[in-house]
Amino acid sequence: MSDTPNFHMTPKEFRRHGYAMIDWIADYYERIESYPVLSQATPGDIRASLPENPPEEGEPFEAIMADVDRLIMPGITHWQSPDFFGFFPANASGPSVLGDLLSSGLGVQGMLWATSPACTELETHMCDWIVDLLGLPTHFKSTSDGGGVIQDSASNATLCAVLSAREQATNYGVNRDGGNGKLVAYTSSQAHSSIEKAIKIAGFGTRQLRVIPVDDHFAMRPDVLEKQIREDLAAGLTPCFVCATVGTTSSLAIDPVPEIGRLCRQYQLWLHIDAAHAGTAALCPELRGIHDGIDLADSYCFDPHKWMFTNFDCDCFFVRDRSILINTLSILPEYLKNEATTSGAVIDYRDWQVPLGRRFRALKLWFVIRHFGTEGLRKYVRYHVALTRKFSDWVGSDGRFEFVAPPMLNLVCFRHIDGDKRTQEIMDRLNADGHMYLTHTKLNGRFTLRFCIGQVRTEEKHVVQAWERIQETTSKLEN
Amino acid sequence: MSDTPNFHMTPKEFRRHGYAMIDWIADYYERIESYPVLSQATPGDIRASLPENPPEEGEPFEAIMADVDRLIMPGITHWQSPDFFGFFPANASGPSVLGDLLSSGLGVQGMLWATSPACTELETHMCDWIVDLLGLPTHFKSTSDGGGVIQDSASNATLCAVLSAREQATNYGVNRDGGNGKLVAYTSSQAHSSIEKAIKIAGFGTRQLRVIPVDDHFAMRPDVLEKQIREDLAAGLTPCFVCATVGTTSSLAIDPVPEIGRLCRQYQLWLHIDAAHAGTAALCPELRGIHDGIDLADSYCFDPHKWMFTNFDCDCFFVRDRSILINTLSILPEYLKNEATTSGAVIDYRDWQVPLGRRFRALKLWFVIRHFGTEGLRKYVRYHVALTRKFSDWVGSDGRFEFVAPPMLNLVCFRHIDGDKRTQEIMDRLNADGHMYLTHTKLNGRFTLRFCIGQVRTEEKHVVQAWERIQETTSKLEN
Repeated sequence: MSDTPNFHMTPKEFRRHGYAMIDWIADYYERIESYPVLSQATPGDIRASLPENPPEEGEPFEAIMADVDRLIMPGITHWQSPDFFGFFPANASGPSVLGDLLSSGLGVQGMLWATSPACTELETHMCDWIVDLLGLPTHFKSTSDGGGVIQDSASNATLCAVLSAREQATNYGVNRDGGNGKLVAYTSSQAHSSIEKAIKIAGFGTRQLRVIPVDDHFAMRPDVLEKQIREDLAAGLTPCFVCATVGTTSSLAIDPVPEIGRLCRQYQLWLHIDAAHAGTAALCPELRGIHDGIDLADSYCFDPHKWMFTNFDCDCFFVRDRSILINTLSILPEYLKNEATTSGAVIDYRDWQVPLGRRFRALKLWFVIRHFGTEGLRKYVRYHVALTRKFSDWVGSDGRFEFVAPPMLNLVCFRHIDGDKRTQEIMDRLNADGHMYLTHTKLNGRFTLRFCIGQVRTEEKHVVQAWERIQETTSKLEN
Repeated sequence: MSDTPNFHMTPKEFRRHGYAMIDWIADYYERIESYPVLSQATPGDIRASLPENPPEEGEPFEAIMADVDRLIMPGITHWQSPDFFGFFPANASGPSVLGDLLSSGLGVQGMLWATSPACTELETHMCDWIVDLLGLPTHFKSTSDGGGVIQDSASNATLCAVLSAREQATNYGVNRDGGNGKLVAYTSSQAHSSIEKAIKIAGFGTRQLRVIPVDDHFAMRPDVLEKQIREDLAAGLTPCFVCATVGTTSSLAIDPVPEIGRLCRQYQLWLHIDAAHAGTAALCPELRGIHDGIDLADSYCFDPHKWMFTNFDCDCFFVRDRSILINTLSILPEYLKNEATTSGAVIDYRDWQVPLGRRFRALKLWFVIRHFGTEGLRKYVRYHVALTRKFSDWVGSDGRFEFVAPPMLNLVCFRHIDGDKRTQEIMDRLNADGHMYLTHTKLNGRFTLRFCIGQVRTEEKHVVQAWERIQETTSKLEN
């Protein structure tokens, strides 16, 4: 017998290094505005500084942390900076980081109820809380035929919705016999790329994904949707899935869910709603209009890891009829059988998602909701929406800029009136300068700046500064 | 304009609560053996203790932590206990927990190189290190045509392998046109349930998954595999994917990869190797025989989150030809375009996985490898294998027990000679007692105990105690 190895970090050492790590993160948040928001690394920089081979002997924790500062930090784009206005936010609030730390420390597997009952039951409870918090239909609650689950991302939630729709339409036939090339799915030209990815993965074929055009506000045109469904039916195909977007990635456009939902009922298609970013707005009763028609949906998802201050990964996915999802994804090998599962009295979330293993992700959501309170979460949403309105007023009053889409919630899409080249120059100059970060999209083929306000640390002064920088940079480029 | 909300946890507060959380986790590890390993909660217990509605006002951090102790802990099954011998381990070592904490604190998105270059480059570097650490073929390195990526789980790695195989076999035709019901996949009757799940998701149909029988040691029979491939070809079908297992979930059986690989070459099938748990053993040169034939594989995965002390989620997935994987999963909407991506000089890992978003998971792997060193990691593997040999000697010398499969690496599969009922009684009694935890499987239809030694905190005394309890419990049941 070999001696017990002594490389394990003892609780005492964990305490010491843990304090140091907490201090490091707190220091980071204190000095975060001193970094260029967008990393200024060039391809290969970071790797070039790393040793070619792994160390033979263990190294002191202090040496690792010194390398974090020296080697890693130059390659970080600071998503937690209050000057980050790109993409959608990926918030890591204090309570969330600590809830996630607890999840790592406990290190439980939530694949089955039995492998840690609290992991499953807190998750179910949090999803039910979310239904109340956002005013979602009660048929998404675990006490009905539906229910919620925490997935890693809206991409995977959408994939699960596509698979459920596929199996519902074929009486679980694709699972059994494979695809027949006849299933058809629908979404708008503004939908997230994950819809196309899910359609590929599920074996529909992108040829069978109908990309429905949008109206002047970038929302799906239900008249074209219906015409297309009818044509596909006439061609002997099997329409089965529609993804409507509440808050598109490019411009936060909202598809007309009531009309789309009516069509889905009429033609018996699965309606999935992707509200990945915008869903959080429904915390505020006065903004719940974004969810009009949601009671017609078969599934719905939004990401607390975007605008609800819960760090990645945390997507809440709800279904109206959990039995379809479970029957689609269920597997039960002998080594996972146990009394609780057999009794049917519990939820085993392994059957609600693609992977088998799962973290205790409900902890961080619980920590966030309890730390901020419903009131606190609402106040941030209202604050960000108010700041966005202010920012859009400024843009609207500067004759050099024009809106490319109506400002929505916490996003403003605008461009320089001189066109794509000038607009991109402004963005590149601002991002290279490092004091702020914003990203772009194309709308109606035109290069468009996206300015999104959703970081928990962003205050009015940061938005004011950003607007001043945008103005200054634009002026400089004009000279 | 509304006032700036003040619910955000300040760096100062984060420091205070962070210390408390670190202390909580350190305390937990110190007292972990005082908990019953398997949670004694009954269905609904945890939820019944939680308030029905989310709080309107924010709550003090201390109140949340008090509820962790009071409400959550009774519902935890202690995967980090040194007395946990169930399933495969899900290790959360100190350096890993702290590396993951850093990832949460930084809160970067790694979907594109540009969204945090260090996240991509450290991941590529760690995957290359792993190739050296495990002695994997160099064509899995990023400097060749292949490369590695960190996925959440072997389930998703396998799904990516299935999808790549599907597209390779159809010249990207399923992605384009949808499934034709002709693709066939192969794996053994002992393969993990995630293979069947992936085959369903990818739209092959389980009817098209050939479950190849195993030999007396639970390893796939290549003669039957070849016969089946020939039959399928003769029937006009398209064999395209084989999953071989290095270390099956039930008994750590190792499929004959050299023969399977030869067949895959001959018939042009994608060979994926699932070494989720056992792969870690290859840290030790003397155990690398488990990987014989791996140079014939098109893809390979193993989970550092099982036996390599890196907390969930962390699966390393390697492919021989990254272009197939990328072409299978690639999407590039305008809002993700950037100069680095366009230049082709960087890796964008969004195209190597199903979801778009991704955490900075390489940090925890880097922390683990540097903390333990190659030497330290090897010593633990050798220690666990030595303890397992000792345990299997004890089982072998007790006439009341018999092996159901040959003891392998760090797993012993055994049963009471009186049969299933008695064997299950022993397990149920041991797990209800709470001092240790083990799980079961069925092999050749017989109820079998699985005893797996892989927790970083497990020492010889824990294994000795476990064996004493197994003997005592067995004796008591005989009276």
